[in-house]
Amino acid sequence: MGLKILLLNGPNLNLLGVREASVYGSETLEGITKDLQAYAERRDVELRTFQSNSEGALVEAIHQARTWANGIIFNAGAYTHYSIALRDAIAGVGLPVVEVHISNVHAREEFRHKSVLAPVCLGVIAGFGRWSYFLGLDALLRHLIKS
Amino acid sequence: MGLKILLLNGPNLNLLGVREASVYGSETLEGITKDLQAYAERRDVELRTFQSNSEGALVEAIHQARTWANGIIFNAGAYTHYSIALRDAIAGVGLPVVEVHISNVHAREEFRHKSVLAPVCLGVIAGFGRWSYFLGLDALLRHLIKS
Amino acid sequence: MGLKILLLNGPNLNLLGVREASVYGSETLEGITKDLQAYAERRDVELRTFQSNSEGALVEAIHQARTWANGIIFNAGAYTHYSIALRDAIAGVGLPVVEVHISNVHAREEFRHKSVLAPVCLGVIAGFGRWSYFLGLDALLRHLIKS
Amino acid sequence: MGLKILLLNGPNLNLLGVREASVYGSETLEGITKDLQAYAERRDVELRTFQSNSEGALVEAIHQARTWANGIIFNAGAYTHYSIALRDAIAGVGLPVVEVHISNVHAREEFRHKSVLAPVCLGVIAGFGRWSYFLGLDALLRHLIKS
Amino acid sequence: MGLKILLLNGPNLNLLGVREASVYGSETLEGITKDLQAYAERRDVELRTFQSNSEGALVEAIHQARTWANGIIFNAGAYTHYSIALRDAIAGVGLPVVEVHISNVHAREEFRHKSVLAPVCLGVIAGFGRWSYFLGLDALLRHLIKS
Amino acid sequence: MGLKILLLNGPNLNLLGVREASVYGSETLEGITKDLQAYAERRDVELRTFQSNSEGALVEAIHQARTWANGIIFNAGAYTHYSIALRDAIAGVGLPVVEVHISNVHAREEFRHKSVLAPVCLGVIAGFGRWSYFLGLDALLRHLIKS
Amino acid sequence: MGLKILLLNGPNLNLLGVREASVYGSETLEGITKDLQAYAERRDVELRTFQSNSEGALVEAIHQARTWANGIIFNAGAYTHYSIALRDAIAGVGLPVVEVHISNVHAREEFRHKSVLAPVCLGVIAGFGRWSYFLGLDALLRHLIKS
Amino acid sequence: MGLKILLLNGPNLNLLGVREASVYGSETLEGITKDLQAYAERRDVELRTFQSNSEGALVEAIHQARTWANGIIFNAGAYTHYSIALRDAIAGVGLPVVEVHISNVHAREEFRHKSVLAPVCLGVIAGFGRWSYFLGLDALLRHLIKS
Amino acid sequence: MGLKILLLNGPNLNLLGVREASVYGSETLEGITKDLQAYAERRDVELRTFQSNSEGALVEAIHQARTWANGIIFNAGAYTHYSIALRDAIAGVGLPVVEVHISNVHAREEFRHKSVLAPVCLGVIAGFGRWSYFLGLDALLRHLIKS
Amino acid sequence: MGLKILLLNGPNLNLLGVREASVYGSETLEGITKDLQAYAERRDVELRTFQSNSEGALVEAIHQARTWANGIIFNAGAYTHYSIALRDAIAGVGLPVVEVHISNVHAREEFRHKSVLAPVCLGVIAGFGRWSYFLGLDALLRHLIKS
Amino acid sequence: MGLKILLLNGPNLNLLGVREASVYGSETLEGITKDLQAYAERRDVELRTFQSNSEGALVEAIHQARTWANGIIFNAGAYTHYSIALRDAIAGVGLPVVEVHISNVHAREEFRHKSVLAPVCLGVIAGFGRWSYFLGLDALLRHLIKS
Amino acid sequence: MGLKILLLNGPNLNLLGVREASVYGSETLEGITKDLQAYAERRDVELRTFQSNSEGALVEAIHQARTWANGIIFNAGAYTHYSIALRDAIAGVGLPVVEVHISNVHAREEFRHKSVLAPVCLGVIAGFGRWSYFLGLDALLRHLIKS
Repeated sequence: MGLKILLLNGPNLNLLGVREASVYGSETLEGITKDLQAYAERRDVELRTFQSNSEGALVEAIHQARTWANGIIFNAGAYTHYSIALRDAIAGVGLPVVEVHISNVHAREEFRHKSVLAPVCLGVIAGFGRWSYFLGLDALLRHLIKS
Repeated sequence: MGLKILLLNGPNLNLLGVREASVYGSETLEGITKDLQAYAERRDVELRTFQSNSEGALVEAIHQARTWANGIIFNAGAYTHYSIALRDAIAGVGLPVVEVHISNVHAREEFRHKSVLAPVCLGVIAGFGRWSYFLGLDALLRHLIKS
Repeated sequence: MGLKILLLNGPNLNLLGVREASVYGSETLEGITKDLQAYAERRDVELRTFQSNSEGALVEAIHQARTWANGIIFNAGAYTHYSIALRDAIAGVGLPVVEVHISNVHAREEFRHKSVLAPVCLGVIAGFGRWSYFLGLDALLRHLIKS
Repeated sequence: MGLKILLLNGPNLNLLGVREASVYGSETLEGITKDLQAYAERRDVELRTFQSNSEGALVEAIHQARTWANGIIFNAGAYTHYSIALRDAIAGVGLPVVEVHISNVHAREEFRHKSVLAPVCLGVIAGFGRWSYFLGLDALLRHLIKS
Repeated sequence: MGLKILLLNGPNLNLLGVREASVYGSETLEGITKDLQAYAERRDVELRTFQSNSEGALVEAIHQARTWANGIIFNAGAYTHYSIALRDAIAGVGLPVVEVHISNVHAREEFRHKSVLAPVCLGVIAGFGRWSYFLGLDALLRHLIKS
Repeated sequence: MGLKILLLNGPNLNLLGVREASVYGSETLEGITKDLQAYAERRDVELRTFQSNSEGALVEAIHQARTWANGIIFNAGAYTHYSIALRDAIAGVGLPVVEVHISNVHAREEFRHKSVLAPVCLGVIAGFGRWSYFLGLDALLRHLIKS
Repeated sequence: MGLKILLLNGPNLNLLGVREASVYGSETLEGITKDLQAYAERRDVELRTFQSNSEGALVEAIHQARTWANGIIFNAGAYTHYSIALRDAIAGVGLPVVEVHISNVHAREEFRHKSVLAPVCLGVIAGFGRWSYFLGLDALLRHLIKS
Repeated sequence: MGLKILLLNGPNLNLLGVREASVYGSETLEGITKDLQAYAERRDVELRTFQSNSEGALVEAIHQARTWANGIIFNAGAYTHYSIALRDAIAGVGLPVVEVHISNVHAREEFRHKSVLAPVCLGVIAGFGRWSYFLGLDALLRHLIKS
Repeated sequence: MGLKILLLNGPNLNLLGVREASVYGSETLEGITKDLQAYAERRDVELRTFQSNSEGALVEAIHQARTWANGIIFNAGAYTHYSIALRDAIAGVGLPVVEVHISNVHAREEFRHKSVLAPVCLGVIAGFGRWSYFLGLDALLRHLIKS
Repeated sequence: MGLKILLLNGPNLNLLGVREASVYGSETLEGITKDLQAYAERRDVELRTFQSNSEGALVEAIHQARTWANGIIFNAGAYTHYSIALRDAIAGVGLPVVEVHISNVHAREEFRHKSVLAPVCLGVIAGFGRWSYFLGLDALLRHLIKS
Repeated sequence: MGLKILLLNGPNLNLLGVREASVYGSETLEGITKDLQAYAERRDVELRTFQSNSEGALVEAIHQARTWANGIIFNAGAYTHYSIALRDAIAGVGLPVVEVHISNVHAREEFRHKSVLAPVCLGVIAGFGRWSYFLGLDALLRHLIKS
Repeated sequence: MGLKILLLNGPNLNLLGVREASVYGSETLEGITKDLQAYAERRDVELRTFQSNSEGALVEAIHQARTWANGIIFNAGAYTHYSIALRDAIAGVGLPVVEVHISNVHAREEFRHKSVLAPVCLGVIAGFGRWSYFLGLDALLRHLIKS
């Protein structure tokens, strides 16, 4: 089918494998990404990736996705909880976005229970470690092929 | 592998296909369940199902799952937002539970943004229509096989 | 006209006449129901009644009403204030529902001032003792005949 | 019996039939009032009416009702939600007051869910369009005759 | 000394002696006013009085006081708790205003604990029945003579 | 073009030039109005003006504007923050209304940050002293000519 | 004296001894109940027991207790925190009810600090493990014998 | 008449004349007390005084007043806003207590707007500087002589 | 067994028998204490008692208990609701503390529903009048003997 | 006069014309800017423009404006609602800033009703589509010429 | 330079070294004080110390410091979070006060995040164990020498 | 000892000396930094500095510090109050971080009282002007040498 997907990672996710292993696991973002790309390829999907710690750069990556991508898998990290700018970007480009989280944010601090992005996303997947990304890709593909 | 999974559905999900099709789609719970069971079988997983509109009956289904199931896929419907009894049941049996929702609860009324169950679940999947169940099964299997 | 109406009573209403007479009066639910059925009959309306203390059973009574009733008169008792499951059931079956209360809930504890059901009901009648039911029936008939 | 009732309407109700027809219907206040007076007459009830957009004038109408009326049917419009002066007037005169609303205020903006008047009224009727007034009259008569 | 004082009474205070005697006592506003004027005269103070149930009329009485009065004794009744218009009028004319209440508002409903007027008044006297007015006059005179 | 505009001023604005000059400036409402009318005339716009301290009178001025005006420039003063009656009047007549404020309400007390009128107005202009009115007129004309 | 007491246990208490032993201890409900019945017998008290995970069934057990019991020892489990239906049942039957908890609910999650039942109970005992039941029985007997 | 009154002053009032003169004035507590005692004597009232910075000592002074005083004038200073112990002491002894404040607490920080004592006092006088004490004495005498 | 227990009473409990008999009963603290000491002696427990209205003195009594007591029965009165100092003292000494209340605090004012002490106590007993102390002693002994 | 103004646009405003046309209109930021620059030139004003999706870059643009601009027209987009960094930048440079919004933010989601920037701005203009910018320029010029 | 400083310690700090060593460390207050006095002496500063568990005694120590001290290092312990009396004492004496905490209060319970004292202190130092005192002394000296 | 420390400054701190001198003083960041580096050198500490107005750049500076620094002195400016991304970065790298503020944030606007960073920092120092940095360095060194 030749779908193109953006895998977008927000702040501190470049620390994966380093940062608080008890919460986020010991695998690096590179490791997960490589496996996910292989997984995507087997489904004839092109997966481009971008990670940034900057809210502005993430906004722009979403804007640019408008011109080439069929959908976005987005782990917005901490920005999930307060970046209305990212929310507006998602609503603005009109692409289907799947919000993913490695940890179960609902089992952590109160302020992580609220997502300002979720209301403009297609759906949310949280708590399955590295597999959250794979499930996110599956969810997006189900949606894109169906629609 | 021979894993056994409980597919648990809460209040009003027996109305699927009837109830507010614009929100929940036009497929019945029976239709989705049948496909999901076939999907499970191909993965050598036995999927037993139970639906109830009664909080107490759902609590008991979780208790009984302790004796035979490896995990639970749980769409608790409205009880998601206030049933501390179900939360305690999940915490009490110690099984991995994946909370699933057909609709994107975060894009609906404020009171649907909060889950009292999520903090004691493995993770949450919401917003992908019938596919939320399939993704929930995949998520649970990834967890069970890994662990 | 041959309309059919469900008179649905929730938790503790079976105690009417016994329970806190200063708040709820000294008449039993049976007494009120009998008079109300006579009142309905004179208007060529069949009034079927159901009382339950179980949230699940009330949800199911609403589901079943879909198959035979033109509308529901519903005194949900304490569930008025927290049962999102009942709210979803009402929204799900799409029948006109009149929320009734014997006492003036707004003149009692703060937590009784809020109804989670009212937003999906046709309207609300509260505070007129046994007459709340009769007014509820009138209100429903006005609506059904008009529409 | 020769009862005398005040039909009291608050701010913007003189716009009925003009104002937001999708919410309030297309009938004028005059039309409804005329029918309601006929309805009252048939029950040997004198129905006097007063509408004002001024909180102070409404307070005074309630004060004056003390000297001639047996009860009040009151649609306080927007003042329902903040006029403690009207609340105090109702409590001060000690007449039975039925709070009525044309629309189902609970299905509208959050700030319309709260009535500062209801705790000192006999009861509340909301959501039945023009019929809310008729039901309000019935409710008041039931109360007056009973007491 | 020849001071001139406005005694300003807000909504429902014309009901004094009638309204809820257990809260407000059995004396009429006329009775209290007459005694207070005699009391004022003995101190060579001219006391003019105005009562209104209308927020706008009270605002205007405050405006006019600018041209002749040395201060205001103000029982704003229910408007105490929400009339920002009266607050702005008080701040606007720059006269010393003593807020008085017959009942102890802090011992009543929660919403009566908050005064939106008090922050722009000279001070507050509440809870001493008819004597609150006399104390208010004394307080104002102490202030005016001192300053 | 021959447009007709209502310039509506709420409570205490008749005190302009007198009241708290550090906040509101030293010009009178008459002075501003005269200049604004000249400004309007040069644009072939008839500007009629009304000021009242009474919520009810303001409601009625909005009602009457329905019969002759193309839009309203409204400085509701303190009523901005709590008059749901004015909000309902604006929504009821369906005219474009520009909410204006002389001072920057957001830089003042917390309770002035919230407008109950703004959600049903065309837009808001605040903080530019006497020029807020001129900008309000421009804004309204831009809207009326465009539409 | 021949008193009769209902020992009522709510949701998940049938899991005692299994569920989170670090919080609730390792003894089963059966074990505790047996000892408590022996303890009661020695005081010439008949202790009947009922456990249910269903809110409705618990409501009904309270209703039925009206006909035979002198009082109730009630561990409502999770329902403690939200079941207004149970609150109304307790208030309705007018029996003395002692609320008991095995764990110290105040040392756990915030939502466990609030009991909707306590205001209509005789008193509360929490935090003493299995002994909370024995203390609850003592407390009830002290009350019954005294009164 | 020979009445006996306790003048009770709470924390930091011994600093009067020293502490923040712009808020509290430049007179010492001794100075005010001396004048107030002379004022009391002329009315045949014995005024005993006690000041303490300790909550416990103030509680005890209230307890002891039970045995000799007819009423209390109480400036509780900061304890006004949080000392439930003092509230309970006032309620416990059943004497009439007039709460007084030198400054207008409502014109200061938000946390000073709330009094936990006022609901169990006879009334409140605030904002009149040293005269608040004299007015408080007058208020108490009016009450004691009347009753 | 020779256990030593501190019976600690907080503010206003020295007024027992005097203070609001409808809430607290007509027995004095001395009376209750004497009976409780006899009760303790029969169990070979030494019960030392201390009452203070001062937060600081109560803190110090807890500190000293570290050197001689096996546990504390603590009725902290009003301090229950705000004394973080007492909470820290309890946590600091590490003794088991049973929080007791004569009245059912949950059936009284909202601010009495919250205990800042309970999270660091062993458990809570409230609502059983004088018997709360006896039950508290039993509870503490059960705990001490078990552990 | 040769004034120099910075036109500053925040996140997602580069999407104008693309993003949610029903909310923001179909014109591009380039189109509006071009017209606004022509409009400025006719008033002898130099208008320099900067748009960024990065909070940091916007902070710096404000810093730099200190060195050359007489004032700022600022549409901060989503940052309006949470960027205290931008607020501090505005307060820090001390230039007059006019906050503008294309849509009427008060008629949208609750979280858009609050501006953290407005308290340090000169004033706010919202809801007039492209004309908000022109009105903002007029407002700023009125202020700059006056001052 | 001969500066004189008061080292003031509030409730439970006399337990240091005993109380919860994991939070507060194992050193006693005496040990820390001794070292701090030596440290002060080397800087030619006289350090007097006072510890009390009584709010009133701490208020008085602050009052007395007015007569001899140049500043205060204050660890108010639990009173930090609610003692408005201490806040008023600090504001009243006008001495520079440095608020210190041994533990990082922001990393503990929510109620410890708020200081009612900090707004009237010079600054705050928290989280550095025994060194918080030394840093507090340094901070105070920097301030005193500079000013 | 050869320790290496990162001095990290957030948004608007490059304006020091320019921005609101009454709050932040008249010294530039460069001036303070130079003195602090000299101070560090005398203690054999290498102090590297970084200032940015961009949240993302600050996140990355913290990430990089992992590879070379022993700790961080962090004045996060406005980001202190909402940047969960910075909080996660601090928690992620596991370095000791001292939060410093030039002004006493607790004496300013309410929103500055809360730090989202403090719970994951070693401690906080606020209110001592330029000396907050020096004290922060001392605090960090005490911690590093001790540990």
